[in-house]
Amino acid sequence: MNVHKLLGIELPIIQAPMAGVQGHALAISVSNAGGLGSLPCAMLSTEGLRKELSLIRSQTTKPYNVNFFCHVPPEPDKPAEREWLKTLSPYFDEYGIDETTITSQSGRLPFSAEAADVLEEFRPPVVSFHFGLPELKLLERIRGWGGKILSTATTVDEAIWLEEHGVDAILAQGSEAGGHRGFFLTKDPDTQVSTMALIPQIVQAVNVPVIAAGGIADANGVNAALALGASAAQIGTAYMLCHEATTSQVHRVALKSNSARVTALTNLFSGGLARGIVNRLMCELGPINHAAPEFPLASSAIAPLRAKAESLGRGDFSPLWAGQNVSGCKEISAAALTRELAGL
Amino acid sequence: MNVHKLLGIELPIIQAPMAGVQGHALAISVSNAGGLGSLPCAMLSTEGLRKELSLIRSQTTKPYNVNFFCHVPPEPDKPAEREWLKTLSPYFDEYGIDETTITSQSGRLPFSAEAADVLEEFRPPVVSFHFGLPELKLLERIRGWGGKILSTATTVDEAIWLEEHGVDAILAQGSEAGGHRGFFLTKDPDTQVSTMALIPQIVQAVNVPVIAAGGIADANGVNAALALGASAAQIGTAYMLCHEATTSQVHRVALKSNSARVTALTNLFSGGLARGIVNRLMCELGPINHAAPEFPLASSAIAPLRAKAESLGRGDFSPLWAGQNVSGCKEISAAALTRELAGL
Repeated sequence: MNVHKLLGIELPIIQAPMAGVQGHALAISVSNAGGLGSLPCAMLSTEGLRKELSLIRSQTTKPYNVNFFCHVPPEPDKPAEREWLKTLSPYFDEYGIDETTITSQSGRLPFSAEAADVLEEFRPPVVSFHFGLPELKLLERIRGWGGKILSTATTVDEAIWLEEHGVDAILAQGSEAGGHRGFFLTKDPDTQVSTMALIPQIVQAVNVPVIAAGGIADANGVNAALALGASAAQIGTAYMLCHEATTSQVHRVALKSNSARVTALTNLFSGGLARGIVNRLMCELGPINHAAPEFPLASSAIAPLRAKAESLGRGDFSPLWAGQNVSGCKEISAAALTRELAGL
Repeated sequence: MNVHKLLGIELPIIQAPMAGVQGHALAISVSNAGGLGSLPCAMLSTEGLRKELSLIRSQTTKPYNVNFFCHVPPEPDKPAEREWLKTLSPYFDEYGIDETTITSQSGRLPFSAEAADVLEEFRPPVVSFHFGLPELKLLERIRGWGGKILSTATTVDEAIWLEEHGVDAILAQGSEAGGHRGFFLTKDPDTQVSTMALIPQIVQAVNVPVIAAGGIADANGVNAALALGASAAQIGTAYMLCHEATTSQVHRVALKSNSARVTALTNLFSGGLARGIVNRLMCELGPINHAAPEFPLASSAIAPLRAKAESLGRGDFSPLWAGQNVSGCKEISAAALTRELAGL
């Protein structure tokens, strides 16, 4: 099936869900422009989710996407968390932070029956997942209200697995994409290939529509993705300076600076591998440090450092998520950017 | 200027020069099909170069490209070479190789006045470089016979530098490309971005034609590169199984296996960063190991291990260069592949 028809969109543009830098406003603007706006839900409480969905429903009649993580939360691992605190202790000293006040709290929860209960009230037309898929009975609830199901593949094997598990379309995430790698059948970074390499191989391997993500920043990039056989393009980074984004000041400054040219995959901020602009913490600990505990446990200890540094106008401890191509970032409305991306 | 006119080619296809897996035969086949065949010259002696060029001249009247490295050869560094031998000593023991018989010999020489003397006899229409550019008086000799000059950029800064130094077109090498990274203004792997991210940014930054390289394996890939603003595509990996390639048996087997899905940038085989299929040596020492001496000094100590393992049918110590997309490798003639890549 044609992806426009499947998702009910006019333009082959999907705005990537980006937890921490956007909420309902960005999604509404994109959906109203004819693309597919996305709401990142992994960091929302049940109440927060209900509030965001109410706002979307009140401001658009167009299709939209809600995005969830579906990782298996790790067992608490006190020795690993102590090791991580020890690694970070010079920074706690520097900022006068009392380590004993740090509480482990995830901040990122997987899709659950409670979340499905809230979704059922709103019946979002598209639900997308990162890190595989939730259990079958949760997927069936989504199908029950006619919701279409998307999930992320970073390898050919993952794409085949997702098709076998019944997704309606595959988000093929090239290695240049910003934020968390959606990989779930592998944790080997060397399996993560670029959009140019990944899209043709996934298109050849599956029958469902493929949506290209990673490094796409303008209408030429969208056309290139379509030439590779994708049915649509998912774009994240280019939206991060838009009026409706809630991107922090330090993050906006970094995106507009030359330092945005150098990104790396890092596990320091959540424990999971994600692409961000290289900053002080990544330089000093190395972007991948084995002392960081499993996803999403690393973030609790980073939180007070991040807050303190950001209060001083510094992004030294912030996850400055960005893809490898920031050349499309524009300080305009997300609706205008969506039309530009579609070549209008 | 239009790149077809600049290089005198009918098709927007440039065969990437690949030392160790091809000579005149592959280049002739591609040029005769209407693309631009390339001869890798970094590992040829003066006599070898003359012989290859004679064969090309006798078998095609079409334009062709000769490719040279232009690194500054490092000073011999005995302590570093001893450290490298020590790191490899368990393998020498395993294979019964006497370390004292290993002689340091580069195998890869930069472009020189002697090479220019040979070129002058043949006046190749295109000369391309990797690792920057040679000194101005050598470039002027090439211009003297009307030769066009190309060089590789891996970042926007390198593209601007090359344009300022007078290249006729830029080979923009995305991070998914196989073989040696052509970087020369930086050695930071995190600056190396994918084709999808790199091409639009270089196209925006320079006025000379841009040729896209990295991850391009079929006609759709070529069309995607053109959509990004490139004037032509340079393709390497897809040619490695062609009849005219001299790719070794272990390398061919690796390219056809599932292991070709996992490549990494490694410094183990030459000291320079290059992308190849992950094999035993890369697994055991890590793909990037700081004991490896500077480019091209690492290769001497690897040579006897490689020879011994290959004689047993194993690629454990071979540089199995490949890009991230081997899906276009075909056991057909290079001429037929060239026409397919051009969508004919």
